[in-house]
Amino acid sequence: MTSTLIDPATLPGWSTDPAARAAARLDRSGFDPGSDPDAVVVAGSVDEVAAVLAHANATGTPVVVRGAGSGLSGGAVAGAGSIVLDLTGLDRIVEISPADEYAVAEAGVITADLDAAAAAHGLRYAPDPASLAISTIGGNIATNAGGLRCAKYGVTRDSVLGLDVVLADGRRIATGRRTVKGVAGYDLTGLFVGSEGTLGVVVGATLRLRPAPVATATLAAWFDGIGAAAAAAAAITAARLQPSVAELLDTACLTAIADAGGPAPRGGAFLLVQTDGFGADAEIDAVRAVVEPLAGSVDVAADPAGAEALLATRRAGLPALERLGRVLVEDVAVPRSRLADAVDAIAAISARSGIRIATMAHAGDGNLHPILVLEPGRELDEHVWACAGEVFTTALRLGGTLTGEHGVGLLKRRWLRDELGDDVVDLQQQLRAVFDPRGVLNPGKAI
Amino acid sequence: MTSTLIDPATLPGWSTDPAARAAARLDRSGFDPGSDPDAVVVAGSVDEVAAVLAHANATGTPVVVRGAGSGLSGGAVAGAGSIVLDLTGLDRIVEISPADEYAVAEAGVITADLDAAAAAHGLRYAPDPASLAISTIGGNIATNAGGLRCAKYGVTRDSVLGLDVVLADGRRIATGRRTVKGVAGYDLTGLFVGSEGTLGVVVGATLRLRPAPVATATLAAWFDGIGAAAAAAAAITAARLQPSVAELLDTACLTAIADAGGPAPRGGAFLLVQTDGFGADAEIDAVRAVVEPLAGSVDVAADPAGAEALLATRRAGLPALERLGRVLVEDVAVPRSRLADAVDAIAAISARSGIRIATMAHAGDGNLHPILVLEPGRELDEHVWACAGEVFTTALRLGGTLTGEHGVGLLKRRWLRDELGDDVVDLQQQLRAVFDPRGVLNPGKAI
Repeated sequence: MTSTLIDPATLPGWSTDPAARAAARLDRSGFDPGSDPDAVVVAGSVDEVAAVLAHANATGTPVVVRGAGSGLSGGAVAGAGSIVLDLTGLDRIVEISPADEYAVAEAGVITADLDAAAAAHGLRYAPDPASLAISTIGGNIATNAGGLRCAKYGVTRDSVLGLDVVLADGRRIATGRRTVKGVAGYDLTGLFVGSEGTLGVVVGATLRLRPAPVATATLAAWFDGIGAAAAAAAAITAARLQPSVAELLDTACLTAIADAGGPAPRGGAFLLVQTDGFGADAEIDAVRAVVEPLAGSVDVAADPAGAEALLATRRAGLPALERLGRVLVEDVAVPRSRLADAVDAIAAISARSGIRIATMAHAGDGNLHPILVLEPGRELDEHVWACAGEVFTTALRLGGTLTGEHGVGLLKRRWLRDELGDDVVDLQQQLRAVFDPRGVLNPGKAI
Repeated sequence: MTSTLIDPATLPGWSTDPAARAAARLDRSGFDPGSDPDAVVVAGSVDEVAAVLAHANATGTPVVVRGAGSGLSGGAVAGAGSIVLDLTGLDRIVEISPADEYAVAEAGVITADLDAAAAAHGLRYAPDPASLAISTIGGNIATNAGGLRCAKYGVTRDSVLGLDVVLADGRRIATGRRTVKGVAGYDLTGLFVGSEGTLGVVVGATLRLRPAPVATATLAAWFDGIGAAAAAAAAITAARLQPSVAELLDTACLTAIADAGGPAPRGGAFLLVQTDGFGADAEIDAVRAVVEPLAGSVDVAADPAGAEALLATRRAGLPALERLGRVLVEDVAVPRSRLADAVDAIAAISARSGIRIATMAHAGDGNLHPILVLEPGRELDEHVWACAGEVFTTALRLGGTLTGEHGVGLLKRRWLRDELGDDVVDLQQQLRAVFDPRGVLNPGKAI
């Protein structure tokens, strides 16, 4: 084997240029490894990915796979001693099958580009992480990214039919299939999704596409406070309605939006609901009927322009917070019935710690994004992490999880055993060793 | 450890009675291991499951887990040298959470019973394998069972949030979570689903429930032949409609139904379509519009009684075939666009082999059930398996899979490398060894 090894330094995409290495050091997590990676290699083909891995495996060199670098958990940060394998050059949409409603895409394809290509056939790629305009399919798969439409359409895993993977030693395998169903062998596809670059390098995927809905209806409601808004979300569930989107903003979000000159708040909490499909209008009427008794005011959009106006408040949330300082976007999930408890507990953590925390939540699936806002000049110090840690343990105490859709990366590793238990973490480490016996794939991350 | 081992022969559920052993030897696959298992133990609790496994692991005794014995791939057959661990006594529905739309159930709960319990809250358990009145949740999880509603609502995996598992050495772990989203650690839940009793013993599950649809609409269409029916199914897809059910019967099925005194055929192929939700009626009208130009006749049910009348043809299929002789229910899947090719190829295999094959298909997801009907007195001989093998290789040639929803079990092992390739099978065997290093869990099955 070693006689056929190609030195990655001979590849056209190889660089040890200081600027290239510095650009590949960070992601959007706020975590700094303290040094630059030794080199960056922009893969020009799957064969080059295989060559890089075979060499890294033979030499014991850590490899950090990088897409758009938009991750929020530190999964793609890379320091001295490692090389960064950049997949953004693998950006071909290989196939769209309108008849079988799937797409085959390379890992570096931007998620929004795939969705746009699907739209030309009346289809859509359902997962819609907030980063979709910049993040890649490969990165979405690495973290099992979610988005706004998950409660109805599932997370990334639910849209991945199969994967093309390069193993740590450079061998290539295909997992899954192009059919909707299949149960031949263990679900390796599911194992790779969410594995954050630690089991193999996903270079391509067969992705399920779904019919674009014939209609979408939009409702916005304002409430006195988070308790009433959460009660409204619970009432929607209790009425057995299934919105495609149900987004909740707390008072801290609404205040920041107003301070930024955005839509004026009409209450202390905001809930945005969308329904879709042939029954969108009938279902939004049913939503209105259960929400209205709990709300201060309710608007249903009459047309797409009206829907955009209602969506503006939700969209204004993160930019308004980013104006105030550096943000740490957290990502916990709880059973939906504990949403109000979670938001209240997070507000109490904010008050105790003195760190401003605003919470946006995907109310339909119980996924909360508490956003820690640091005053200008403040670093991500231990006090900030302790505050984030309180948020994590709150989610676990309420029966939830450390991470709904962003992944464990570097930032949440120290809490992982609290959620999973020692036996499960130990099993997962053994699984990791099956795929990567030499420990070259994103060492120190995820599990 | 050995000092604390409990001999399973001391458990109240233990039996070496010949009748009990004989009753645990077969499932519904038609495969006979040629001998009875050494013993059967009906577990009375999870602790007893753990005790059985710890002892089996220590002594190297093969354990075959059994639910209702309704499997069609031989995953639960058990011969001399093995003990059968029967989970049908673990039949408690532990919790239904209407607020969070999940259920916690033990492995031995009958699938239909869970669905009925959910219905009391306006919810349903979406996976609906044809065996749901007799099969168990644990068995459904072991094979990642499908059903009629998969194209819209997914397979069993898509409704499993978390699992309670006893490992081969008797340790207990919990996988997954009660939240809709979560990405902390590798997806062990997905790994256990479809693993056919080879990675651990699933003793309980947290299952996602979904709103029962407010309305369901039903359409039945008759066509000259399978080509037109498949074209109609393709037209439904091309119109970006999403039926909850789309079932196709071929001429051989319809002939058997008519011979059995069932509904008279009005063509050479039959397609049953259901839509559901707030837009069910509007969506069935859209289905009708695309199907009608291709069909000989189309009926849309006016009410539930009318829907039952249309469903009667589909329901009559398997019983009509079982009248004619012993049946071998196969289970392949192809990309939906290859449905007609697959049905045609299977008809040719039938003509060539002289073995009657009737095909029913879940047209919405490309899953076909070619049903081999053996004349009375005929055994499952090599000629029959060769014929089944031709069906499997046809599915692979068309870009499909050996098994859509029944599992590999014993019957399909010899074709598994053809689908997965050597590298993937080898990796899966290494994963298996992580969970079951002594090889006591259902040896010789699945991978």
